Amino acid sequence: MSDRKELANAIRALSMDAIQKAESGHPGAPLGMADIAEVLWNDYLVHNPANPEWPDRDRFVLSNGHGSMLLYSLLHLSGYEVTIDDIKQFRQLHSKTPGHPEYGMTPGVESTSGPLGQGIACAVGMAVAEKVLAARYNREGHTIMDHYTYVFMGDGCMMEGISHEACSLAGTLKLGKLVAFYDDNGISIDGCVDGWFTDDTPGRFESYGWHVVSDVDGHDAKAIKAAIEEARAETGKPSMICCKTVIGQGAPNVCGSEKCHGSPLGENEISCARENMNWPYAAFEVPESVYSAWTAVDSGSTAESSWKRDFAEYEKAYPQLAAEFTRRMKGDLPDGFATYASNFINSVDAKAENLATRKASQNAIEGLAPVLPEFYGGSADLAGSNLTRWSGSETISPANWDGNYMNYGVREFAMSVMMNGMSLHGGFIPYGGTFLVFSDYARNAMRMSALMGLKVLYVMTHDSIGVGEDGPTHQPVEHVASLRLIPGMDVWRPCDAVEAAVSWEQAVMRDDGPSTLVKSRQNLPHQNRSAQTLAQVSRGGYVLRQCDGTPDIILIATGSEVSLAMEAAITLESKGKQVRVVSMPCVEVFERQDKAYQNEVLPSHVAARIAVEAGVTASWYRYVGLQGAVMGLDRFGESAPGSELFDYFDFTADSVVRLAEQVMDEKSKTAG
Amino acid sequence: MSDRKELANAIRALSMDAIQKAESGHPGAPLGMADIAEVLWNDYLVHNPANPEWPDRDRFVLSNGHGSMLLYSLLHLSGYEVTIDDIKQFRQLHSKTPGHPEYGMTPGVESTSGPLGQGIACAVGMAVAEKVLAARYNREGHTIMDHYTYVFMGDGCMMEGISHEACSLAGTLKLGKLVAFYDDNGISIDGCVDGWFTDDTPGRFESYGWHVVSDVDGHDAKAIKAAIEEARAETGKPSMICCKTVIGQGAPNVCGSEKCHGSPLGENEISCARENMNWPYAAFEVPESVYSAWTAVDSGSTAESSWKRDFAEYEKAYPQLAAEFTRRMKGDLPDGFATYASNFINSVDAKAENLATRKASQNAIEGLAPVLPEFYGGSADLAGSNLTRWSGSETISPANWDGNYMNYGVREFAMSVMMNGMSLHGGFIPYGGTFLVFSDYARNAMRMSALMGLKVLYVMTHDSIGVGEDGPTHQPVEHVASLRLIPGMDVWRPCDAVEAAVSWEQAVMRDDGPSTLVKSRQNLPHQNRSAQTLAQVSRGGYVLRQCDGTPDIILIATGSEVSLAMEAAITLESKGKQVRVVSMPCVEVFERQDKAYQNEVLPSHVAARIAVEAGVTASWYRYVGLQGAVMGLDRFGESAPGSELFDYFDFTADSVVRLAEQVMDEKSKTAG
Repeated sequence: MSDRKELANAIRALSMDAIQKAESGHPGAPLGMADIAEVLWNDYLVHNPANPEWPDRDRFVLSNGHGSMLLYSLLHLSGYEVTIDDIKQFRQLHSKTPGHPEYGMTPGVESTSGPLGQGIACAVGMAVAEKVLAARYNREGHTIMDHYTYVFMGDGCMMEGISHEACSLAGTLKLGKLVAFYDDNGISIDGCVDGWFTDDTPGRFESYGWHVVSDVDGHDAKAIKAAIEEARAETGKPSMICCKTVIGQGAPNVCGSEKCHGSPLGENEISCARENMNWPYAAFEVPESVYSAWTAVDSGSTAESSWKRDFAEYEKAYPQLAAEFTRRMKGDLPDGFATYASNFINSVDAKAENLATRKASQNAIEGLAPVLPEFYGGSADLAGSNLTRWSGSETISPANWDGNYMNYGVREFAMSVMMNGMSLHGGFIPYGGTFLVFSDYARNAMRMSALMGLKVLYVMTHDSIGVGEDGPTHQPVEHVASLRLIPGMDVWRPCDAVEAAVSWEQAVMRDDGPSTLVKSRQNLPHQNRSAQTLAQVSRGGYVLRQCDGTPDIILIATGSEVSLAMEAAITLESKGKQVRVVSMPCVEVFERQDKAYQNEVLPSHVAARIAVEAGVTASWYRYVGLQGAVMGLDRFGESAPGSELFDYFDFTADSVVRLAEQVMDEKSKTAG
Repeated sequence: MSDRKELANAIRALSMDAIQKAESGHPGAPLGMADIAEVLWNDYLVHNPANPEWPDRDRFVLSNGHGSMLLYSLLHLSGYEVTIDDIKQFRQLHSKTPGHPEYGMTPGVESTSGPLGQGIACAVGMAVAEKVLAARYNREGHTIMDHYTYVFMGDGCMMEGISHEACSLAGTLKLGKLVAFYDDNGISIDGCVDGWFTDDTPGRFESYGWHVVSDVDGHDAKAIKAAIEEARAETGKPSMICCKTVIGQGAPNVCGSEKCHGSPLGENEISCARENMNWPYAAFEVPESVYSAWTAVDSGSTAESSWKRDFAEYEKAYPQLAAEFTRRMKGDLPDGFATYASNFINSVDAKAENLATRKASQNAIEGLAPVLPEFYGGSADLAGSNLTRWSGSETISPANWDGNYMNYGVREFAMSVMMNGMSLHGGFIPYGGTFLVFSDYARNAMRMSALMGLKVLYVMTHDSIGVGEDGPTHQPVEHVASLRLIPGMDVWRPCDAVEAAVSWEQAVMRDDGPSTLVKSRQNLPHQNRSAQTLAQVSRGGYVLRQCDGTPDIILIATGSEVSLAMEAAITLESKGKQVRVVSMPCVEVFERQDKAYQNEVLPSHVAARIAVEAGVTASWYRYVGLQGAVMGLDRFGESAPGSELFDYFDFTADSVVRLAEQVMDEKSKTAG
């Protein structure tokens, strides 16, 4: 039987060896947190290495994701499909062991992490997910959802603002099964943190309403164990275990210094460390006795089997709930959802209402939510503006977790990362609202949704200069274009209630990533569509207004500018021009269509094209080329009533007409 | 003589009247904080309404910027050039009273505010600026820099993560002349904050090392005054005065509720409020007695005159320091800077070194900083990676403010907003570094730099997939493109040490906005340039490699891809093609050149063009059109050694050649 120190040293050895072989990586955290991880994983973490998808497993998030070798070592040692050869491939192309933990690339990695502070916020989201599912599905004598969420974090996470947002809210929510471990080693990349980080961290977390276990020796297994016991005993508050550790513990000459944070220890120091740790094995060699002390394969299988038996009983007693739970955890939509959604869209079309698309968005939630118990809404303190609530919205609170809506407070970034956490946990389609301009605050979380391919819906209202009086700080002129640049993010900018409804349908039905639903503050007129045209909205770009024969010009528009293009088309037609109007509510979806369809909408032989969007112009040249023109706004807005601003910035049908005529003139000159 | 309540009610009346007339705005905060503002402005704030630029004035920032009518009322009442007619124009186009305070539009507005939490961080930057200037310029018996920085903040600011970043650092820095007022009214937009914000805020700020004055009755002038006295008496810590207030105080039927936060009170409620406040005057009418109690024109003139006398003495005693101080506060560069910088660039060119542009960037700092005492550097805990330090870097600390460098800790957003604050304060050209990918965390601060037109330099290293092993979370593939979309932001992506030096020169010499300097982690080869070519680098885009006659194709490239384009050009030339290579280190600067120059670089009759950049492609079609092609990366990166990734993603000279040949083929087919 190995002693605990030896088990922890296995992490240290694997980490330093893998980092050395890769010639890059971060040994400081894996060596420093090895003892904590060993106690948590061997004595507490309930998980099954053979099935990383088991719904009721404990969740573990490494918020200080640069310490990835800690996590890979844990997965390898406890029996996940991460072999010693995978460890040897650390940081190599397409390996299971990339530089930072990447969700979907490694069995057992619960979340991509690395951008600091997001792991803790993600864990808060997971802990919320557990509470909400438990409240909905557990029944007297049948506990099918009951797990802990554990998270490791370092000084960097503590300094990042998002740790404040998420942990403040976690305190308010009294998330008793969330346990965080703070790796208090006093070192960050620039050196000893005394010069830039002097928080009384226990005091800070107590001010949030957390239970804090202070001054734990992070290299003493008994002390760690006692701390975890204390944390688990407190069920009414999240717990923060503050562990004093030495960064790079085990490497005798560099431990305690920033020198071991972010680069390989070097062969010499590794030799010294082996001797110092009394670890006489070769690189990447772990003795069987250590493996057998580490494995969680049997205990994990037993734990999951027991849960499965319980679930079978539950299934008998509550077949509908069980089926719904299973469906939700798989991420499947309800049977018949496509038809249901399509009927809803038809009903919106039939109503032909002129609405602000934020209102149309709320109608869409109201329309779809009744069949989507997995919908989990919220807003960063703008519910009445974002219109994210529907008649069935039930706000969760520590006193009542059986709900589907959350007040995130003024915390755009935490909201977004928590939605990622809920999505990763499984069982939810989270949607959350703020003003589009404040997507800036949440931007890296939105990027992470896209990188992980999560179905998270961002409801971003108050689009462009239509915001009006609040002025340039609140008028997103570059945000639509800039969110479109995030690979994998679908950005919908609907022109009316129908496109708004389709944007929700498509976002819900999309299986491989997030969507941003951009909605107007102001009313937008309904556009008439044939059944065929209606069916094409979901293709991201389509011919909203057809003309006879080859168009003299194509007007491409999105959102609030579509009605201007439509009006301009009528004027131009009255002057004898053939004008096609293409509405392009989602550029990314249009780009995924086959070339034939794309060419049908935008025939390559029609070079006279203009694009109209009340935002920055650079990206539109991909559709209008050097011979076309873009009517946009390459400057910040102004504070004034919204309708005045459209005039002031010359967003009028007349201006569209003038620009179209210019482009056609130029074109005929070139042709001549 | 008016009593204090009446003076405060003048703010309330002006605010509710202006908001009512505008039919939009936020009365809650101005009414709720009127009493606090009245005491601070009338009894403490040292300022001169006739000269809002007086260097040693106290700074006042309204972090809860939606309460703009509070600030406009204060400016009007105390005698700034904000007339009652300006107040009546609240939220109208081009008025001095836009929806949120906008720097540069209104005399006395120290910073644009509205995006929550940034005001407090900006104030922290201003307080740092004061300390650093005081340490450099004050001399025994000559105190020319000695002012307070005051900031108002609401619940929203408290919830935002950036309040944590900035206030944690302010505590570490012991900013004794920073005084914050927390408008603790228990209400945010979604209602009573109990459901989402339950921090023990005094405890939180004590954990940061702040001096906290708790439980102050924000409607009791005596209590407010006592709190301010207490705050000013504590010179070793920043002070947080927690004021209990009633939102919308004075409006009898809606005060204390979110209903008065963000919309006009309505004529009825305004009548009731007038009666309730015993304010019998007509809308926008303020009695002379109230004006004369409010005016700060005489006291301000006296205060500034006294400072001017002191400064004249100082000038006699320390003429060089005085001249430098005056120059810095004006924002002028040293005489002869242009020549100095140009010589430096020539020396870099002469060295012809192959360097990582982050290293070249450090060399540029080293080259320019000796003549720029206003340079104030820093990094968000990545000094050794961003290479933001130079041999003259002196790190500030509470024990030594006479420095020019700061360790911001892992706080990208706070760093950026604090730089805005330092720039607004005057006397500094702040530059700060982080990894380019984490510009996401700071994005709205960068937007605010651009909106305010501030000379703030963002040193963003570790560009694109060249980052290598750290993987997609750390590889910025969309960030260069996305930062270019922020109106007013210049984004430089240099291809070698020479362009890196020019990027610094241009960023320093630019007078109307911020610059982002994107730098590579990996080495990039030196490009040879004639004197004429060298002079054109500063035009943002230029012909790096010319060919004979009309080019068969133009290769446009930036940063690490320029050398690929150059290599490809040689290969293509060997195949008999005439190839021009355009290096475009700064698209925005190139766009500001005259049409003739632009057409000289990219002649409109040459349609065969390709753009090469290891990032998202959408924006490049503005230069290559529908007939050209873009070699880019419309997906996230991978974790692997950087050089392998360039091969894996097919960023090679051979691929450039192939793509160029395709484009020329297509072109000849079209022509044929």
